[in-house]
Amino acid sequence: MSHNTFGHLFRVTSWGESHGPAIGCVVDGCPPRIPISEEEIQHFMDKRRPGQSRFTTQRREPDTARILSGVFEDEETGELLTTGTPISILIENVDARSKDYSDIKEKYRPGHADLTYDAKYGIRDYRGSGRASARETATRVAAGAIARKVVPGMIVRGALVQMGPHAIDRDRWDWDAVDDNPFFCPDAEMAEFYAEYLDDIRKRGSSVGAVIEVIAHGLPAGLGAPVYGKLDQDIASGLMSINAVKGVEIGAGFVSATLTGEENADEIRMGHDGAMEFMSNNAGGILGGISTGQPIVARFAVKPTSSILTPRRTVTRGGDEVEVSTKGRHDPCVGIRAVPIGEAMVAITLADHYLRHRGQIGQGE
Amino acid sequence: MSHNTFGHLFRVTSWGESHGPAIGCVVDGCPPRIPISEEEIQHFMDKRRPGQSRFTTQRREPDTARILSGVFEDEETGELLTTGTPISILIENVDARSKDYSDIKEKYRPGHADLTYDAKYGIRDYRGSGRASARETATRVAAGAIARKVVPGMIVRGALVQMGPHAIDRDRWDWDAVDDNPFFCPDAEMAEFYAEYLDDIRKRGSSVGAVIEVIAHGLPAGLGAPVYGKLDQDIASGLMSINAVKGVEIGAGFVSATLTGEENADEIRMGHDGAMEFMSNNAGGILGGISTGQPIVARFAVKPTSSILTPRRTVTRGGDEVEVSTKGRHDPCVGIRAVPIGEAMVAITLADHYLRHRGQIGQGE
Amino acid sequence: MSHNTFGHLFRVTSWGESHGPAIGCVVDGCPPRIPISEEEIQHFMDKRRPGQSRFTTQRREPDTARILSGVFEDEETGELLTTGTPISILIENVDARSKDYSDIKEKYRPGHADLTYDAKYGIRDYRGSGRASARETATRVAAGAIARKVVPGMIVRGALVQMGPHAIDRDRWDWDAVDDNPFFCPDAEMAEFYAEYLDDIRKRGSSVGAVIEVIAHGLPAGLGAPVYGKLDQDIASGLMSINAVKGVEIGAGFVSATLTGEENADEIRMGHDGAMEFMSNNAGGILGGISTGQPIVARFAVKPTSSILTPRRTVTRGGDEVEVSTKGRHDPCVGIRAVPIGEAMVAITLADHYLRHRGQIGQGE
Amino acid sequence: MSHNTFGHLFRVTSWGESHGPAIGCVVDGCPPRIPISEEEIQHFMDKRRPGQSRFTTQRREPDTARILSGVFEDEETGELLTTGTPISILIENVDARSKDYSDIKEKYRPGHADLTYDAKYGIRDYRGSGRASARETATRVAAGAIARKVVPGMIVRGALVQMGPHAIDRDRWDWDAVDDNPFFCPDAEMAEFYAEYLDDIRKRGSSVGAVIEVIAHGLPAGLGAPVYGKLDQDIASGLMSINAVKGVEIGAGFVSATLTGEENADEIRMGHDGAMEFMSNNAGGILGGISTGQPIVARFAVKPTSSILTPRRTVTRGGDEVEVSTKGRHDPCVGIRAVPIGEAMVAITLADHYLRHRGQIGQGE
Repeated sequence: MSHNTFGHLFRVTSWGESHGPAIGCVVDGCPPRIPISEEEIQHFMDKRRPGQSRFTTQRREPDTARILSGVFEDEETGELLTTGTPISILIENVDARSKDYSDIKEKYRPGHADLTYDAKYGIRDYRGSGRASARETATRVAAGAIARKVVPGMIVRGALVQMGPHAIDRDRWDWDAVDDNPFFCPDAEMAEFYAEYLDDIRKRGSSVGAVIEVIAHGLPAGLGAPVYGKLDQDIASGLMSINAVKGVEIGAGFVSATLTGEENADEIRMGHDGAMEFMSNNAGGILGGISTGQPIVARFAVKPTSSILTPRRTVTRGGDEVEVSTKGRHDPCVGIRAVPIGEAMVAITLADHYLRHRGQIGQGE
Repeated sequence: MSHNTFGHLFRVTSWGESHGPAIGCVVDGCPPRIPISEEEIQHFMDKRRPGQSRFTTQRREPDTARILSGVFEDEETGELLTTGTPISILIENVDARSKDYSDIKEKYRPGHADLTYDAKYGIRDYRGSGRASARETATRVAAGAIARKVVPGMIVRGALVQMGPHAIDRDRWDWDAVDDNPFFCPDAEMAEFYAEYLDDIRKRGSSVGAVIEVIAHGLPAGLGAPVYGKLDQDIASGLMSINAVKGVEIGAGFVSATLTGEENADEIRMGHDGAMEFMSNNAGGILGGISTGQPIVARFAVKPTSSILTPRRTVTRGGDEVEVSTKGRHDPCVGIRAVPIGEAMVAITLADHYLRHRGQIGQGE
Repeated sequence: MSHNTFGHLFRVTSWGESHGPAIGCVVDGCPPRIPISEEEIQHFMDKRRPGQSRFTTQRREPDTARILSGVFEDEETGELLTTGTPISILIENVDARSKDYSDIKEKYRPGHADLTYDAKYGIRDYRGSGRASARETATRVAAGAIARKVVPGMIVRGALVQMGPHAIDRDRWDWDAVDDNPFFCPDAEMAEFYAEYLDDIRKRGSSVGAVIEVIAHGLPAGLGAPVYGKLDQDIASGLMSINAVKGVEIGAGFVSATLTGEENADEIRMGHDGAMEFMSNNAGGILGGISTGQPIVARFAVKPTSSILTPRRTVTRGGDEVEVSTKGRHDPCVGIRAVPIGEAMVAITLADHYLRHRGQIGQGE
Repeated sequence: MSHNTFGHLFRVTSWGESHGPAIGCVVDGCPPRIPISEEEIQHFMDKRRPGQSRFTTQRREPDTARILSGVFEDEETGELLTTGTPISILIENVDARSKDYSDIKEKYRPGHADLTYDAKYGIRDYRGSGRASARETATRVAAGAIARKVVPGMIVRGALVQMGPHAIDRDRWDWDAVDDNPFFCPDAEMAEFYAEYLDDIRKRGSSVGAVIEVIAHGLPAGLGAPVYGKLDQDIASGLMSINAVKGVEIGAGFVSATLTGEENADEIRMGHDGAMEFMSNNAGGILGGISTGQPIVARFAVKPTSSILTPRRTVTRGGDEVEVSTKGRHDPCVGIRAVPIGEAMVAITLADHYLRHRGQIGQGE
């Protein structure tokens, strides 16, 4: 996790700006002979793709992911397989509107990375927020599609569990509902409320935050390497690296701070199949930085989009006090599209730890 | 961040088990000619040291940190300076009571890493929880004491802001109060309440969680490297790597999810000194993964100690269903001692990013 | 240095196969505001480009390097500058002839990576040797062109100093001669001999090895970090990673093993300018893994191309004993084109160490 | 490979100065349940230990390696096993004579790291050459002893094959002879000559270089990860990181540059056991950066010790022109003790690659 590379054995290197010719990533260290196709990647790209409902930005990007290397036909079936060499993925920027950027070039939008990029580098590609654009996250989803296939039996799913102050009713959780509304919301009833709520936000030119939950099933116990390669540590690192994320928690998370030891302990019994069975999962599937075999549960908070219509006080690069408001295409709740991105980062982290564990310990013993 | 090493340019490698002869760390990549003494390190070690009040474990460890390498006398003053080579720090385990470990050797304590270490490695040093013991965090504090001196002008301070469900009153925040109570609590009034509250918890053989806040002042804008070396990402990684931590947030954190864009935006004006001045700090000093120059604000949730007197249902290594309760010396609120540890991890992360930034960009321009 | 990424702060990630749609690399960690253009990169690409004389492979590749990210126009001059974000470079494969690969698909060419890729991955893109093709080195040259601009005042030059058993006469060394013959040979007289010699090798369908020397001028003292980030160690790592390289030496190299301490010691005097002056450079500019300020001198041995016309005994993937000979376009002395590649790897290594040194120590003190 | 850490999955972090209280290393990422004892480590320590014949420095160090962490008793046998957590090894400095260091404190010894440490860090522990002392290599041998046990069936052996200009006769190579002479020389006849030759060098207060060869048997095909994690690349990195090493070669090495493709190709036939059999090993067991299954063969050149009696011209820290000669205890041929060190670095590199390969590919398929 450094520079623009995430992971140790399963490594993703990201590049590209919002309005350059393309963005992309290099997925390195993938095991060989894993079937992968552009269609499979596209399936996940399409979830993150903008412009699919009135609740996300109206930028029209096909987000077509091309594989440029690292795959080859199976001799017998003709199916494309990974070869173990770097997989280069390229996504062209198609709908990068040429427009007048003089406003965001000079005025620092509060809550935006404009000013910090300037402070750090002394230069920035301001077109469409350049490297700081959420567009960069498309490469995460592409890499995540490959990561999903690395760990046998692993399923990683995400859902929006809170929008603004409005949390879902967890008793109504239904995974099937997630794909039936534009919010990836597992509570169908709440999804109807969100539609109204967000329409209001959107029409006012405002924006709102959200909380996303990602759950990974099917992982073996033993993944994670204390004390500085802990599984929860790297999940936190991956999720916090997503644009606009301000908090991450595992299992009971901040609620666990309010509990007593008795309440928090996940008691254990033996299941019918002779395997351990936990009576609860406050740990979120991780103890001492190592997976327990229970589902991995992570949540993250996404702040409201900083690009809003309402004028905010700010300064220019030259130090003049001004007001700024952002017209143009933007997400009223950027947290929605964070669902497939969060899934991708968890999948990438787990694929990496699966290989790291196999390296140190071996397998199948 | 991998294995037992944290950091890229300023790197800390940790080793040791709770009841072995010693624990320690190697601090590598420290700039040369920084004055450092064992006394300075000891100052911070003493904050984390157990047995200082009735609210922490009664294990008696002097926690004396010895420097074995990487320092040398200044030719003129005789003062010890770092030489730029690895600084090896050794802390002997003194009060590692020989006792009967048969209970925790066989029975998995709910919420503890016993079972995951077994699942991963097939062997573990179970004495005093071995590598998974909070004792390991002493090395973090030692390394943090050095990290604090790497960034000129940086001050890193922490405080306990919530114990169980009881949060402090932020209007009563007083840094001077922090060292006047055994909880590192900045709200003197609440500290009195905590004393009573925790006494009750302790006498019942129970435990409780806490929330810690760490604030770093005096940092320049520009630290952090998007998109996978973001400053908040690495702070989250560092804090989540601490034993018993289940959540991390930056600035407004999970609250930011409940806000609108208007509420969340930190507006900017020009200060009297010609520098930018923010009207609020919901961002916690970080935008787009890069420091803004405002104070860095991070919070983390610590779960209640899993070692409690109340019997809990669990299983043995052999798969028998049993109950377990932990007698012996333990922290009723392990979150208290997490304050100096959290400070240390933030200081280490910032020192590392300070050097990484200087490497890519240079300085003083 | 791991997987397909070289470097720590200045990092190059390489991808692509010989007959896929393209190859490329991502240069990450480059300081911002460095002027760089596709033309500058092309200047070095053209040196490595095949088909420029009868002494290199007749594959016709324009080797056009396109910059896809990480640069932006200077506000005032319009000149392209690095932005500090990842620079993605793409080189299309144009002349990837569709041909019958059944021979190299089944028969392991002695000296080639065919069999080891199969042994490792169980699958390989055999077209034009896939990932193991020398084509991959084009990305090194592109990255090297950027690296050259990172260290102020640094000049990195290479030359072929031996072909087969025939070494140049070092007394005739003339840097100006290097670009005047197709061998990058600094000894014009020897270059004429090489032309004849290699014509003979080429006509016989044979091949021959070479020794390349790379010299870097203009570096400050102090680069390199003992004991596992030594400058010579990383130069050796970089040069040994080039296809077909079997040996690396620094300064007097293997000859130093034959010397006494008296003969090997580079004595020091004070120069006219008040700076230290060395009487010789057996150390090749590096002592204890740290640069002395003298020129860095490295040499590497390139084995003869394994693809030759003369039939050699080998086996098939199925284990049948057969003979194999390689027809088609190949370099009779692959060492020639190794000159710009060796320069690139030295430049990349030095750029990385320059930034790493600046990170730990700061600058200009 | 960065700072003072070598390796990616099997990682060795080294610390310590020649005349401080101790030196040591942390071996991290070792697989669990490997039997390891201090006696086994000591066996290899004793080979490198000084003062064992008149041909090495007369410093008397017991070089006792203590294990401080990362091992635990097997429940049934009581045998010490690795636990998968960091193994900390400590070696006390016993015979660090207090003496007058004013000479080497002020005068830069030609060929020594005195001046480069000063140039880089602006401060150095000059006592016994501090961090730049060959004493540091003791930690490599200790770590190597553990690495040897990581790869099942691997045997790593080294030998001195040239002293000064005098190479052994390879036809007389006898591994049994290696332990019967003080030079680790596999040619008993030549060893007798070396005794005389080196006595003369030693009495004159001079020194001489050497070439060491390390051979690893018993490795599977498939280790190594092109293009920047090549096996030969990392062996070169490891060997070049040893003090005084100026050249590294694999297989035929620099000689391969003199060969034609026909001569260099290692032809392949099928062996009696149905496995491939190579007719020669010019490749040194590595093709395309990946192991072939043949023995790995590496050689490295060690320069003569820079500490000699004969006065050499140099300058002081203050810039005065002086002469310097080194009295005191030193190795007339530091290459001798480089044999166990070279073995250790090769073993560490191979252990690391064994785990890296297992991580990406899995095992036993």
